Amino acid sequence: MRVLVLGGDGFCGWPTALHLSEAGAEVVIVDNLSRRNIDNELEVSSLTPIQPMRVRLAAWREATGNEIDYHRFDVAQHYYRLLSLLREFAPDAVVHFAEQRAAPYSMKSSWHKRYTVTNNLNATNNVLAAVVESGLDIHVVHLGTMGVYGYGTAGMKIPEGYLRVEIRTDDGRRIEQEILYPANPGSVYHMTKTQDQLAFAYYNKNDKVRVTDLHQGIVWGTQTPQTQRDDRLINRFDYDGDYGTVLNRFLMQAAVGYPLTVHGTGGQTRAFIHIQDTVRCIELAIENAPKHGERVKILNQMTETHRVRDLAKIVSDITGASVDYVDNPRNEDAENDLFVENRQFLEMGLEPVTLANGLLTEVTEIAQKYAERCDRDKIPARSQWRAASVGAGLPADADQPSTAG
Amino acid sequence: MRVLVLGGDGFCGWPTALHLSEAGAEVVIVDNLSRRNIDNELEVSSLTPIQPMRVRLAAWREATGNEIDYHRFDVAQHYYRLLSLLREFAPDAVVHFAEQRAAPYSMKSSWHKRYTVTNNLNATNNVLAAVVESGLDIHVVHLGTMGVYGYGTAGMKIPEGYLRVEIRTDDGRRIEQEILYPANPGSVYHMTKTQDQLAFAYYNKNDKVRVTDLHQGIVWGTQTPQTQRDDRLINRFDYDGDYGTVLNRFLMQAAVGYPLTVHGTGGQTRAFIHIQDTVRCIELAIENAPKHGERVKILNQMTETHRVRDLAKIVSDITGASVDYVDNPRNEDAENDLFVENRQFLEMGLEPVTLANGLLTEVTEIAQKYAERCDRDKIPARSQWRAASVGAGLPADADQPSTAG
Repeated sequence: MRVLVLGGDGFCGWPTALHLSEAGAEVVIVDNLSRRNIDNELEVSSLTPIQPMRVRLAAWREATGNEIDYHRFDVAQHYYRLLSLLREFAPDAVVHFAEQRAAPYSMKSSWHKRYTVTNNLNATNNVLAAVVESGLDIHVVHLGTMGVYGYGTAGMKIPEGYLRVEIRTDDGRRIEQEILYPANPGSVYHMTKTQDQLAFAYYNKNDKVRVTDLHQGIVWGTQTPQTQRDDRLINRFDYDGDYGTVLNRFLMQAAVGYPLTVHGTGGQTRAFIHIQDTVRCIELAIENAPKHGERVKILNQMTETHRVRDLAKIVSDITGASVDYVDNPRNEDAENDLFVENRQFLEMGLEPVTLANGLLTEVTEIAQKYAERCDRDKIPARSQWRAASVGAGLPADADQPSTAG
Repeated sequence: MRVLVLGGDGFCGWPTALHLSEAGAEVVIVDNLSRRNIDNELEVSSLTPIQPMRVRLAAWREATGNEIDYHRFDVAQHYYRLLSLLREFAPDAVVHFAEQRAAPYSMKSSWHKRYTVTNNLNATNNVLAAVVESGLDIHVVHLGTMGVYGYGTAGMKIPEGYLRVEIRTDDGRRIEQEILYPANPGSVYHMTKTQDQLAFAYYNKNDKVRVTDLHQGIVWGTQTPQTQRDDRLINRFDYDGDYGTVLNRFLMQAAVGYPLTVHGTGGQTRAFIHIQDTVRCIELAIENAPKHGERVKILNQMTETHRVRDLAKIVSDITGASVDYVDNPRNEDAENDLFVENRQFLEMGLEPVTLANGLLTEVTEIAQKYAERCDRDKIPARSQWRAASVGAGLPADADQPSTAG
């Protein structure tokens, strides 16, 4: 089994590459280091001391004897490099993490909106066009988001990607159809994922490309059994207002003695999954590839749901931190329910790590252990969903955002 | 009334700019001349002898006394140029034609797929982000396509953009919802238009941008009363296999004494509209802008439907040409019905030019008049929907397609 991991230096990509390597796959990583470069832009860094790629890969070689090959280029820009690699390596599966993945970052300014759009949509289209042009039978596994569904489902359980609806025709008949769940994105980042879905559907229909699209919840946790094998393999932990998820920000606030800041009423319900389950889900998705001619396989990659204020309470109970309610910068409903179908992964054998069991480890092994590396000023979320802020620091005649590296 | 016409040198953009100028609007055109450059690439040219932009604009000034300003830049690439122009000109409406608009061209090779995706999606996102960043209350009018609906509607009349569906909930209730009509694009070009729709919906929801999306049928006809005022104002007429629509190819085949080539059985039903009605529809769309807070207004911009083989018969009856049935390069159903709702424009006062009345003018005034300019080799459609053809003539390390001019 050969797997190409696009975005294999990132928070999900890196542990996925190691997990698949340990499971016996031949793994090649492509990454343009955009996530590290964005750290430079935002003047933040991972709480955990992540190592340069070549150090990481050497440590993995020492720990396991396994080689992981690594190519630094931009999937959204260097199509022919990608195509050549597909032809040389002939992977069975391409795991596509090569997208800008933070909603707040995508809303920081018009530049960030445009970077997110051009990077994400060109990356996805390049992957699909290259798979077609290669003529190889490559399964594309894509990391999508639960956010494509939106968060207001009238008490209905969110199905896995497709929705059965009834349409009344002009002559009074009723037609049943299964359609792609109507998109309702909450940020420019989420919007690109809904646009990705249409690309998958099209290339699947026209070119019979086999695609699995994983609608992932918010990932929590930092380490996997593989990243724990050597300090140099440690995974990144983001706590800043753009890339830090709500849970990570709570953990850091508690670790540095700040109150936990809950946006609005904290009544937003979100879906979660542990990073160990993420990498296991990717493996299961590869093992359970769609058949030839099958439509895009969509799975909800999440294991539990929580309201934000309840998360704050759990972290507060473990750490003793207090809770502060602040204004919500996002343009969203104050309170929402969320019921999610996730039967497919459970039937494939996923045994979830629960928040109740795993959270204490995060508090002691990550947040408290590395607390002295935290820059407290970076914790608050500052992106405004409705501000018309300008592209800070860019010349007025700058071209389209580019990540060429 | 101030109107910015993006793509104002193109087949629809040019007569629209003139029509609005004559109707009293202050018009500014932006165009990167991509359509003329693509003629160079394809080694074809408009059957009609179109003039350079500055000649066109001088002729319009002579004919009417009206000034139309013109800026040559790429909307998909030069965001800050667009933003400055919005701030300086402060248009009431932006008419967005700045997209690659030929389905066969979008399927010629992986390079053409990628050019279409990056050009169209970045152009649309740039327009929306710039309108938001400008802080101005600008109505965005976009040329979409009937092709977003797909062509298999089980005998149902295609509504104007939104579809009322019933969903059964887990607890047995039925919820009625109006959703964006499920997308079913037939080419990479059409796919980008379905992705555009999600961008309009998002910016409308988050930023309250007022948007009208026009789902246009196949445009036929060449001239409008404005383009007829001076020979130098003549509109383009494309007959080649990529940009020439089915009707134009029939007209040319007849004019040069070739049989009319019908793809497959010719049972494909398509929607049509005359270019004079196109420009009138744009004017009506601007006059009937959505209110603040209103969702994206979607109108079907077409006036009649015909099966391709019936079109061939009409042209054959007028010209005496014979009809040839050849293989269909597209990946589509051989036969389809098409019923389209188009009440909104009719209620606004549109009085359609019908094929029955207008076609003879096209035969005599355009196809026969300029027949000696026709390159017969260029008439056949050569793009294959399923071939994995390479980007002809491109270096193997070429970057992302760019139209920087």
